[in-house]
Amino acid sequence: MKELRTSVVPGMTHWASPNFFAFFPCTNSAAAIAGNLIASAMNTAGFTWQASPAATEMEVLALDWLAQLLRLPTTFMNRTSTGRGTGGGVILGTTSEAMLVTLVAAHDAALHRSGSVGVSHLPRLAVYAADQTHSTFFKACRLAGFDPANIRSIPTGPETNYGLNPSKLLEVMQADADAGLVPTYVCATVGTTSSNAVDLVGAIADVAAMFNAWVHVDAAYAGSACICPEFRHHLDGVEHVDSISMSPHKWLLTCLDCTCLYVRDAHRLSDSLETNPEYLKNDATESGEVTDLKDMQVGVGRRFRGLKLWMVMHTYGTTKLQEHIRSDVAMAKMFEYFVRADNRFEVVVPRNFALVCFRIKRSGAMTEEDADEANRVLMENLNKTGRAYLAHTVVGDKFVLRFAVGSSLQEERHVTSAWDLIKKTTSGIMD
Amino acid sequence: MKELRTSVVPGMTHWASPNFFAFFPCTNSAAAIAGNLIASAMNTAGFTWQASPAATEMEVLALDWLAQLLRLPTTFMNRTSTGRGTGGGVILGTTSEAMLVTLVAAHDAALHRSGSVGVSHLPRLAVYAADQTHSTFFKACRLAGFDPANIRSIPTGPETNYGLNPSKLLEVMQADADAGLVPTYVCATVGTTSSNAVDLVGAIADVAAMFNAWVHVDAAYAGSACICPEFRHHLDGVEHVDSISMSPHKWLLTCLDCTCLYVRDAHRLSDSLETNPEYLKNDATESGEVTDLKDMQVGVGRRFRGLKLWMVMHTYGTTKLQEHIRSDVAMAKMFEYFVRADNRFEVVVPRNFALVCFRIKRSGAMTEEDADEANRVLMENLNKTGRAYLAHTVVGDKFVLRFAVGSSLQEERHVTSAWDLIKKTTSGIMD
Repeated sequence: MKELRTSVVPGMTHWASPNFFAFFPCTNSAAAIAGNLIASAMNTAGFTWQASPAATEMEVLALDWLAQLLRLPTTFMNRTSTGRGTGGGVILGTTSEAMLVTLVAAHDAALHRSGSVGVSHLPRLAVYAADQTHSTFFKACRLAGFDPANIRSIPTGPETNYGLNPSKLLEVMQADADAGLVPTYVCATVGTTSSNAVDLVGAIADVAAMFNAWVHVDAAYAGSACICPEFRHHLDGVEHVDSISMSPHKWLLTCLDCTCLYVRDAHRLSDSLETNPEYLKNDATESGEVTDLKDMQVGVGRRFRGLKLWMVMHTYGTTKLQEHIRSDVAMAKMFEYFVRADNRFEVVVPRNFALVCFRIKRSGAMTEEDADEANRVLMENLNKTGRAYLAHTVVGDKFVLRFAVGSSLQEERHVTSAWDLIKKTTSGIMD
Repeated sequence: MKELRTSVVPGMTHWASPNFFAFFPCTNSAAAIAGNLIASAMNTAGFTWQASPAATEMEVLALDWLAQLLRLPTTFMNRTSTGRGTGGGVILGTTSEAMLVTLVAAHDAALHRSGSVGVSHLPRLAVYAADQTHSTFFKACRLAGFDPANIRSIPTGPETNYGLNPSKLLEVMQADADAGLVPTYVCATVGTTSSNAVDLVGAIADVAAMFNAWVHVDAAYAGSACICPEFRHHLDGVEHVDSISMSPHKWLLTCLDCTCLYVRDAHRLSDSLETNPEYLKNDATESGEVTDLKDMQVGVGRRFRGLKLWMVMHTYGTTKLQEHIRSDVAMAKMFEYFVRADNRFEVVVPRNFALVCFRIKRSGAMTEEDADEANRVLMENLNKTGRAYLAHTVVGDKFVLRFAVGSSLQEERHVTSAWDLIKKTTSGIMD
């Protein structure tokens, strides 16, 4: 422990610090840490239901609770008030894995529809997302064997606040279909990493339906906000998509890692992913009455991650979780207000959740390059102080600072201090 | 906590129980649990070096230490005594992910060699493993887009103790090459899940080299034993393979999840897996001097898993870790002795590590079906007692019980009690 304190801690980036405003926060709680601790001690590898019944049951229960919090249609749930649902969920490690497994299911479905055997038609399948979609989506497509030439990154612009334009999507999908390709999968993002842009889920699902393509919603960060009625409209239309993933390890107080994937028809996933080796055969599986979660993920082994999610929801309850989201959003609004009140700065895109994208405005004799450079220097100088940590992005060719509120220990005073530091550092640069 | 005790614990399969002999044990230790606890609290998502320098450095250090323990060639190490190595390691969640990412790297290398663009030649690539290889390998091949028709499962038999026969491998690879396919990847297993069979790493690497195919060694379970000189020969020839993975979460006291993947040329992996979105760009990455571990895995986010592995090695040291392996093997030997001394039973395959595959022998008027049924009933009756938990497999068409020693709290008395229970239960069936 001494070596840890003296040699390791000084070299860590302190994601848990209230002065951490970079990337997206990894929110945390005593309930989640306790859940992880107990799971570490139990150390079950619940790959099949039979390998640890309560581990699977609790994961399914926690996922169904979260689905209720998010007001997802019951078609995504494992159990409904009238019995077993057709949908299902699974806890994975990352959004990337959620994308990968649904891409594989979609690809199998497309090959099946076209009556193809094997992958001989794989080069004809095409996939779609906005250029603001996380880079990991395009990587997942390559991992799953899609032809890089058929992975479409559709340009976005300020007219849609960098969200995917459904008519552009239609245009691109139609052109591909006309050229003999098979439109297979569309990824819509609710709350992009770069600037928190929101793709219109319902409109995108309508377009995709024309081609029988799978629609996945990546709500890794902003999905957590959708437990509040005032943000839920961002998921409107979700009843028409095939799958949705969101990560409570980002904004729902559940420490790493916990990505929840829901699919409307669990069998479409497990048909592609199931294995049945002799050494895992058991009566429960053969009864067809249980869920074997290994058949909804890449690997076999799996930790008891349902426990921490269950403990977070059980400990805090709906109201407290909503308050947590609202408090972060209120702090982000306050920061946004500070920025707008200082005419040296601009807010670059509308703030949707708790991320504020801002920059020193181009002014006077500044060129665009000068403004970018000023913002780059601002970020470097801020981060060098060790008193705040921010990351950047590029939006519409402009270098932009991302101020992501929400680290679990953050209070108004930390946001205010960071703003004071930003003002002071900017004065140092601009004078 | 009360609800956990009353509603959840009774439904768990207690993997940590000393009476757990099923599957492979998930070994554990206070050091690993503490490492996980601290990592949960720090909650860093060290996707890039810059996102938490010490998290990456410690993971790399822990992996290099483990490589030294395993006497892997320095070509697999990130740092060598003379500076930075060309190899590298990464901690992943499962062996399946290690297989998937190396399959993708191998597939890109094969396409590159054949001058193909995109995946248009993917249907020509072929992959190889013994029929005893974990089913997750064949699944990983499908996930990566290999044509199911070109995924070869090579039959094994008692003449090689169910290990892959290198001359059969050569035959199959040559036939494929003659038919215009491109032999791309061979998976060799050291310690199969079913019966702990060992594929001959060196001989397999020699065959694969004739076709320029990637060789991966899956030593998920038995790799841990190779820290003892008396088991290290199972890795002979590893200097000629491209990658090797082993899981300290199985047999090296490091709780779930911790799969260590080593590759001989780290760039072959990162060339296939790297992403470089604007919001993750940073000076450290651009310097080329650091490792961004996100470029060696499926996803972006990652937990600080290096900490627990470092804490286990730091706390126990080489000698104690070797003693831990030897103590488990000694208990397995004792159990094997018990079985051999009772003529109602047989040991089905030679015991290589701490797994004993045994069964009630066919005798008297018993048919093969009767013997299988007797063993099935034995397992069911044993497990129903709640005093021991065993799993089964099928070896050479026979139903076989797997007695896997090694659960961390296990002592000789637990093995002895389990054997007494087995004898008594068998008497109940046979009389």
